This record gives sequence, structure tokens and C-alpha cells, in this order.
Amino acid sequence: MKSIIEWSLAGLLAAVLALGATVARAADPLPSWNDGPAKAAIVAFVDKVTKPGSPDFVPEPERIATFDNDGTLWAEQPMYVQLFFALDRVKALAPQHPEWKSTQPFEAVLEGDMKSLAASGEKGLVTLDMATHAGMTTTEFEKIVRDWIATAKHPTTHRLYTKMVYQPMLELLAYLRASGFKTFIVSGGGIEFMRPWTNEVYGVPPEQVVGSSIKTKYELREGKPVLVRLREINFIDDKDGKPVGINEYIGRRPIAAFGNSDGDLQMLQWTTAGDGARFALYVHHTDAEREWAYDRTSTFGRLDKGLDEAKAKGWTVVDMKKDWKVIFAADR
Amino acid sequence: MKSIIEWSLAGLLAAVLALGATVARAADPLPSWNDGPAKAAIVAFVDKVTKPGSPDFVPEPERIATFDNDGTLWAEQPMYVQLFFALDRVKALAPQHPEWKSTQPFEAVLEGDMKSLAASGEKGLVTLDMATHAGMTTTEFEKIVRDWIATAKHPTTHRLYTKMVYQPMLELLAYLRASGFKTFIVSGGGIEFMRPWTNEVYGVPPEQVVGSSIKTKYELREGKPVLVRLREINFIDDKDGKPVGINEYIGRRPIAAFGNSDGDLQMLQWTTAGDGARFALYVHHTDAEREWAYDRTSTFGRLDKGLDEAKAKGWTVVDMKKDWKVIFAADR
Repeated sequence: MKSIIEWSLAGLLAAVLALGATVARAADPLPSWNDGPAKAAIVAFVDKVTKPGSPDFVPEPERIATFDNDGTLWAEQPMYVQLFFALDRVKALAPQHPEWKSTQPFEAVLEGDMKSLAASGEKGLVTLDMATHAGMTTTEFEKIVRDWIATAKHPTTHRLYTKMVYQPMLELLAYLRASGFKTFIVSGGGIEFMRPWTNEVYGVPPEQVVGSSIKTKYELREGKPVLVRLREINFIDDKDGKPVGINEYIGRRPIAAFGNSDGDLQMLQWTTAGDGARFALYVHHTDAEREWAYDRTSTFGRLDKGLDEAKAKGWTVVDMKKDWKVIFAADR
Repeated sequence: MKSIIEWSLAGLLAAVLALGATVARAADPLPSWNDGPAKAAIVAFVDKVTKPGSPDFVPEPERIATFDNDGTLWAEQPMYVQLFFALDRVKALAPQHPEWKSTQPFEAVLEGDMKSLAASGEKGLVTLDMATHAGMTTTEFEKIVRDWIATAKHPTTHRLYTKMVYQPMLELLAYLRASGFKTFIVSGGGIEFMRPWTNEVYGVPPEQVVGSSIKTKYELREGKPVLVRLREINFIDDKDGKPVGINEYIGRRPIAAFGNSDGDLQMLQWTTAGDGARFALYVHHTDAEREWAYDRTSTFGRLDKGLDEAKAKGWTVVDMKKDWKVIFAADR
């Protein structure tokens, strides 16, 4: 049984927390969002699932929100950041691989011949991935990623990639967490490419990141255990793979999901097909001046079927140009 | 900038929390543990990693603890609970499969012929698993597990399996969580067999359960998305698979790991090989009266190499007979 002291403490604590919540609520949790249907829909959803006694109330542990990364939380043009990483790694490793000078797709990368690289197709990209992402231990790979992300810059904005994250989405992540949500990343990107920096940049810890992966193998090297990254795909966390990954890694169906491309469509379908209040949102890239404008025909982040389904089903579509006061965290 | 009101609130809150922590600390967090080297080692480890300013201090988000399930958190004799589940499912499904009457290993199960079942080996068990764990949707399987675990009883104790969880380990889980640890299950058992009940029984939510799995496939059935469980193994979370699973699902190396068999050895090796303070514990089944006594030659939960390595490396070994005042949660 609880002692009187404990009960009094609990009461005092509750009062302090309630007062703190009131103070916090007074401020706009989404200051970089213009007033409009997207912002209103987000706030209305959060209000109804968090209000005790509301018919749509969702207990805190079930408030799972999943976010795509490329194009949803950070920029993905003119190509995925991880692809820039792979190309930089090819250049860094080239001295140890003289044969790459005359082998595709490496030759194309080393000569900056993007046309030949594109012509190498998915097979070419997988070859690049395996050459640059596998063969080392997980600890070694983590260091490679950390070193690269700390200094690599975008070719046209000349900014660190971690400064090309969307300020309004950072606010949305924080708002959801302050409202008792657990926020996850569910991305087609490499799980071990994201985990070294998602906590610092998005406030999403490694154990809440789901992504694509290659297989690893446990080994003892001179008695010391290591995990070696193998040249073999383990899981592709894209399209149909997103609900599969959510089920496998999280084990709960999200009540809210956020994406920007057809690769996120199945995640949004899966999320909204659950019982009770659900929320699905697409970020639509409409701002050619402050960012990029693209959708139905884009090579990276194509949004075509998803845009039609969003309209048909009444999902929230963010018009970046209209809905966001600022785009990048760096602009703030 | 924080307002004066917020600062005052924060100060008051900190004072209340500190006072609450002092009150809580006065009580023994592990009342079902006898005083002895195992309990002392646990408490000493928790104290040093949680004490600010200690050279061994670990920030809260990095306090990851992983627990095996079978034989570590609940009983695994005379065989794994999930195997009882599979056998019960064969019996329940038999009317729809008349051919099972004359097909091994089903025939053995239906006739209660454990010798022939054992003779069917791992191949036989996988066949049983696929027949009983696959073919339905994830939602259907979850319901099957929930219904079974709510009523199925152990053949000799006649208790619900969820009452055959170890009271001292429940206290340990709660103690670690109260000390800022995030507790995970990392089990060779099926991830979707565990997730429906681990939160209620252990306080471990679905997203903190790692286990073995079969592949799933995303489908739209009459426009409604489902995940279908396929007859294909996805991942075996045992032995070498445990560090692989920890890296893939959690993405951080634990600072403490708890197991009871050789299947947990690599998890304990991986955990203790990290930098800074680390803790590894084996539960040794030594109590033939209150539970079961087994180790080096047991079919289920064999502890042989692990016991030698624990002694060589100074890992904590729990002597269930000596160290635990009560065994099962039901005995309390």
C-alpha cells in the first residue's frame, strides 16, 4: 500500500504537471505552419485522440506515428542523400580498387558520368551499395556514416544534409511526442545509414528507426565479437515492405503515418485501415523556389498513385508552398 | 527562452521527483531475491551506471537491457510453451486435415507419441510450425494466440503459462525500468507468439520484443489491407542470431543481458564486449523441487558452454534454489 507521503507527492506532482501542460498548451506547437486545412487537420486529430473521454481517445502506448524519411523529413533532390554517400564512398575507396576505372557502374561514378550511371539501373545501384555499404563491421560502418554526415554538403545548396531537414516536420515530430506519441522512422533508406544521426537530428532514437538492411554475421575476431556486414540484401523497406517492416519491427499498427511518395502508399493504407481514429498525410513538393517541385514523374520520390488515393480518401495533403512558412531547419 | 513560470515549475518538479526517488529507494526493489552475490551484483551494477558523476555512469537512453524469454522469464520444461501451443493447434486443426492421421509428424502429435515426434527432429518441428503458425493473417494469428494463452494450462502444474513467469525476474524488470532502463525481450521464440501478451505479463511492449519470425506478405483483400503469414522462415533469433537481431531491431548494444542457456551465449558475449560498465547474468535452473533442475544435457534450455564461459568471465550466475525466495509469480 502506498504511504501518505507517497500519495501527497503524487497529488503535488499531478498538480505541477497539469499546470505545466497548461502553460505549454498556450504556445503554438507548429509555428512554421501557416493556418490552413493541413495544420487544422493535424491539430484536430491530436486533440481528439489525446482528450480523455473523447470517443476517439487512444491510450498513450498505442499512439504510434510513423514517418518516411527521404522527401518527408529531409530533402531527396536531385537524388537520395544516401546515393551521394555511396558515390563519395566509391571515390574514397577507388585507390584500393584500380579495376573500378574500367568497370561499370564504378567507372561512371569516377568520371561523373551520371547518364551511364542511370543506365546501369537498379542492378548498378545495388552493385554500388554492396561495394560501399558491406564488407566492414557494423561499428566501422557507423563511424564511416558519422564522419561523412558531419561534413558532406549538398551540391547546390552547399549545406550540410542534416540542415536540409524540414523545420515544419521537426515541429510536428516534437508536437506529437509532447502529445504522448512514440515517433518512428519507416524509410526505404538504409537502417544503419540513418541510425547514427536520427536521434540528434529528429529526436528519434535508433530503436525507433525501421529501414532497409543487408544481412550481418556474428564473428569472434581474436576473441572479440563483431558483426560483419554481408553483401546480401536482408530487407527492403519500401512499398509493400513498409507495412511488413512496421509489423516486424514495431509490432503495432500506427494510428498516424506521414509520407511523400508512392513508396509510402501501403504504409498509409495499412495505417488508415485500423479501427478508430486514424491519420494519413502526404507532403506534396510544390515549391520550386524554396525547395523543389515534383510529383507524378519524378525519378526520386514519385507521387502519382498516392496523390490520387489521398484525394479519393480525404487524406491530408501538405502543399509545401502554401502550408509552410519556412522549409529548412537551416532557414530558421 | 523559458519563462520564469516554467523554470519555477521545473525546479519544483525536480524537487518532488528527487523526494519521490528517496522514498522509493528505501524499499527493497528485489524482495523475492535472497541476499547473496547475485542480488548484490545486480544492485551494484545499477547503482554505478545510474549515479551521476560515477565513472561508470550511463545516460538513460543508452541503458538498454535485453532478456531471453524461455527459461529466463518463464518456465521452459518439459518443453517450450510455444511447442505446447503448436501441438494444441494441430489438434484443433486436425478435423480440417484428415490426411494428418497418417502423416508424420502430425500423426505423432495426434496420437501423443512424443517419441516419434522427437524422432522427426528439427525438420518435423518446422513442419509443425508452418502448419500451425502460417497461412492466416497477422490479425487472425494474434487472436489465436490471445485465446490460447488466456486458457491453456501447463500439463503438470495445471497453471496458466502466464502464471509460470519468475517473480524475481518480474521484480528485476521493474527495478531496471524504475532505474531508467529500457527493457527488451530477445528470444528464440516467435515474435508474434510473444507480442500479444508480453506487455501485460512483463511490462514489455510489442515494439520492445525481438524474436524469431516467418515472412509476411502485404495484400489487399476486397480493398482491405492484410499481412499474410507465409510458410517461410524470415529470421531465427537464437545463438549467433541474437546479436544480429539486437543490432537489426534495437540498433544499440545492450549494457546488460540476461539469459539461461547456450542460446543466449552470443548475446551475453556481444553485450559485455562493449565499452564501459557491462552486466551479464545467467539463470541457472538448480531447483528440482520448486521448478526443474537442468543444465548441461537438457534438450530444452541446455546450459553447457555458457556455464563455463560465465565462470571464466565472472558473469553473475543465479542459483535459483539459493537465490530466489519464490519462483513463480503465482506463488506470491
